[in-house]
Amino acid sequence: MSSWVVGVDIGGTNVVVGLIPTAGGHPVSIRNRATASLGSQDEVVGHVGRMIEEVIEQGVANGGGSRADVVGIGIGTPGPLDLDRGVVLDAFNLGWRDFPLRDRLAEATGLATSLDNDANCATWGEYWLGAGRGARTLVGVTLGTGIGGGVILDGRLVHGASASAGEVGHMTIDFTGRRCKCGNYGCLEAYASGPNIAARAREGVEAGAESILLELAGGELERITAVTVYEALLQGDTYALEVMTETAKILGAGVANLVNVLNPDVVVIVGGVTRAGEHLFAPLRSEVRRRAFRTAERVCRIVPGDLPETAGVIGAAGLFLSHQR
Amino acid sequence: MSSWVVGVDIGGTNVVVGLIPTAGGHPVSIRNRATASLGSQDEVVGHVGRMIEEVIEQGVANGGGSRADVVGIGIGTPGPLDLDRGVVLDAFNLGWRDFPLRDRLAEATGLATSLDNDANCATWGEYWLGAGRGARTLVGVTLGTGIGGGVILDGRLVHGASASAGEVGHMTIDFTGRRCKCGNYGCLEAYASGPNIAARAREGVEAGAESILLELAGGELERITAVTVYEALLQGDTYALEVMTETAKILGAGVANLVNVLNPDVVVIVGGVTRAGEHLFAPLRSEVRRRAFRTAERVCRIVPGDLPETAGVIGAAGLFLSHQR
Repeated sequence: MSSWVVGVDIGGTNVVVGLIPTAGGHPVSIRNRATASLGSQDEVVGHVGRMIEEVIEQGVANGGGSRADVVGIGIGTPGPLDLDRGVVLDAFNLGWRDFPLRDRLAEATGLATSLDNDANCATWGEYWLGAGRGARTLVGVTLGTGIGGGVILDGRLVHGASASAGEVGHMTIDFTGRRCKCGNYGCLEAYASGPNIAARAREGVEAGAESILLELAGGELERITAVTVYEALLQGDTYALEVMTETAKILGAGVANLVNVLNPDVVVIVGGVTRAGEHLFAPLRSEVRRRAFRTAERVCRIVPGDLPETAGVIGAAGLFLSHQR
Repeated sequence: MSSWVVGVDIGGTNVVVGLIPTAGGHPVSIRNRATASLGSQDEVVGHVGRMIEEVIEQGVANGGGSRADVVGIGIGTPGPLDLDRGVVLDAFNLGWRDFPLRDRLAEATGLATSLDNDANCATWGEYWLGAGRGARTLVGVTLGTGIGGGVILDGRLVHGASASAGEVGHMTIDFTGRRCKCGNYGCLEAYASGPNIAARAREGVEAGAESILLELAGGELERITAVTVYEALLQGDTYALEVMTETAKILGAGVANLVNVLNPDVVVIVGGVTRAGEHLFAPLRSEVRRRAFRTAERVCRIVPGDLPETAGVIGAAGLFLSHQR
């Protein structure tokens, strides 16, 4: 008999809710909504609760089951979190503070609910059903508005002493480097997050780099984004290629750090930037080869995620299931 | 009834062999020897084997037991290693290649033997009997001729996919920084290992820094070592303090990376440099506070090791015991 689990992925831009077969598989039904439209902390539970009921209704109907076949809900959300209490302590991008999201959603739906960090969920999704299947030591790196990550050792997610393990975006890779929005200097995120790729590209254009970037952005410097860089790259723009190569090298230094410290068999890179394919991965792997221990580097596969858009939802659902075992 | 385990710590400078009570405790007998005096790979087993018999004889006699009460031998040695086969693959500082040290020592002594990385052993020693007792997530950082480390999660040493996890000294913390002897640029080790602390101090003196360093080194620039920096510091030398503070900040960036990625409850710093005490630890902790996630940093104790000189021997012995469980 089939059963299902709900995955909820709350990101800075979108909320995605999906119904996932407990045996593993792509969502059988899915809902999207802009995070900004969730409203205040009090309204969030109502909105997300409705999305959950919708994916259950649609997915279960298609699957020929009933609501009783839904075993629970896994939520992924930005942190920091108090995992024991299921509370979002301070998600400043969302304006949430001390928000007992797990128990509020459990009450609203009557379903058992678990909560974890969004980047941990994406990492777990790739481990469970994506590019990291079968890994023993896996590191996930999520590239987006920020850079996050997750660490899995022998089938267990590493949470650390206060549930904030995996914050790979704030590794210092350049001691006196670019200012990061976290307040420090030289964090990986200060170079290789989406907004910072765009910022570096804009700086070059402003300094007179020859490029179609400005044209693609309708002549408005501020409209150059990481996606513009990717589009220019596809059209053969040399400067965009240079920005992407530099991004790859910097990411390579960050990944090399993780390879040296954890000696993983797989590093999965997740996020829109991975669409740049070998333009990103070839120089990234070459930088890791240069910077990491040879014994560690040569056993490590560095691969893009297999589950664009859904790694977070699938992983949130999978982590719920892993807690039940 | 008492029983004992032998710990063998093979470092770049010294070999230390000690007899440790299996219940935990300081060595009841100990031998030291210059690593350089071990001779060729073939002679090593004879020399170390004799040191083992000596510590057993002396220690067991004092303890009122017999040789039959010695349960085995744990060895710590520089890597890379093949843990399954107990082979030192390539310890270039020692001139060893494909050296089946574990089985050769087991044959020579008739005792069960285990092998692990030297920095892992020092970390395990501090975890078992030193400053890291009771930690759930512990990172050890060993400062010496090189910088190594070890990671312990929930009572288990993390080895990674090819037994080279914990190489924290080759984290990039300055993307375009100082050349490291590993061939790359900006590794933590390129700034904060003993020889590199000395090199930075010499560079400053050469550039005209006012300091007693040159005087302490008998007027010979090349004789300034990390110990000279420490001695000058004790005598109130402002420039030596500056070198130590810079060392601490750079180490702080490295430790902050580990805190962000692993969220440990304890980071133990091991090695001679820790004698600088608060001159090292105050600016180091302050840099971690600046660079690491607040939720991770505030639950993390950053402490010097408790077992100067013996962490490696005790840890090698302890790791042997942990394999038997």
